[in-house]
Amino acid sequence: MGIETTMKRLGILLSGRGSNFLAIHQAIADGRLPNAEIAVVLSNKVDAPGLARARVFGLPAHHIPVAGRTPFERDLEFIAKLREYEVDFVCLAGYMRIISVTFVEAFPNRILNVHPSLLPNFPGLDAQAQALEFGAKVAGCTVHFVDEAVDHGVIILQRAVSVLDDDTAGSLSARILEQEHQAYPEAIARVLSGDYEIRGRRFVVR
Amino acid sequence: MGIETTMKRLGILLSGRGSNFLAIHQAIADGRLPNAEIAVVLSNKVDAPGLARARVFGLPAHHIPVAGRTPFERDLEFIAKLREYEVDFVCLAGYMRIISVTFVEAFPNRILNVHPSLLPNFPGLDAQAQALEFGAKVAGCTVHFVDEAVDHGVIILQRAVSVLDDDTAGSLSARILEQEHQAYPEAIARVLSGDYEIRGRRFVVR
Repeated sequence: MGIETTMKRLGILLSGRGSNFLAIHQAIADGRLPNAEIAVVLSNKVDAPGLARARVFGLPAHHIPVAGRTPFERDLEFIAKLREYEVDFVCLAGYMRIISVTFVEAFPNRILNVHPSLLPNFPGLDAQAQALEFGAKVAGCTVHFVDEAVDHGVIILQRAVSVLDDDTAGSLSARILEQEHQAYPEAIARVLSGDYEIRGRRFVVR
Repeated sequence: MGIETTMKRLGILLSGRGSNFLAIHQAIADGRLPNAEIAVVLSNKVDAPGLARARVFGLPAHHIPVAGRTPFERDLEFIAKLREYEVDFVCLAGYMRIISVTFVEAFPNRILNVHPSLLPNFPGLDAQAQALEFGAKVAGCTVHFVDEAVDHGVIILQRAVSVLDDDTAGSLSARILEQEHQAYPEAIARVLSGDYEIRGRRFVVR
């Protein structure tokens, strides 16, 4: 099975419904990510709807408990679980914890995240509300590699979204999320192709 | 001449060729800014090509010398000249000096600037090179009111531009500049309509 040998195994981390997990799952089902498969879905929240959904899909899904553990201990458990499932790439999909340097170093340039702003604009929480409050007229989303700093790693792709005069944080978030759902699988495809290089901070297709 | 009474007089400040001045001039010639006229073009540089061009167009054009003057004294001269020409709105078009609080207060929310980034991303000099260096995949331009802080005032409009893998600062700047030339007259039209309000930092059409 020659085709199997190029298959890349994704580990998904989520804390909520994981709508970007669903978008990635759908992209695989549609054949838009022909050399990807979801190896495991992990969550710090036992009741994350995304975890339940993964089980419905027949995917391995595990809760990694955080109570009584340091962030470092927690991340070691995540790393162990991801290795157990022979994960090649880690996709954060609404995972609401900051991951440790140890975690980053365990998967160098192989952890991806999506953030609902055009980074470096509006890092951190409530990026869409930050954009509205600043009076931005163009917002968007960023898929990037995760590095040691929050919302900071090399950018794989960005998509712009117009801010409308009557936008609320909710309506803007919804339009940005639509773009995230397209951008994240596309960014994964670019990374899995292996056909890129990173020059300084620039992700450039060869 | 009822139509004359609604005419708004623009004062343009530039330091170089003033391509955004030319774009505004063209928009007026094309009828895209029906209630605007350029009252005067001012420059801190005696040899600014934009100043020579203004004279070719038959527009009043003056050099405001800076040698031996403090920034405050210089700005008082600009303000005096703009008042002499009964200017309603001031448009910075590649004016490479920071203007003083006194200048801002003389024309509150009536000084416009265009900046070659999606603010608050990449304020200051060489915004396009900053965007490339950061590895941004979406860049753009911002037309904004000028306030006391650099590249910070209320945003009137923004336009996004894709960053290409083979972009240099030059090629990216050129594509952003095309958008500036469209966005600046459009932003002026929105402001001259008077049909907007500013809520916090949000510029909202009524």
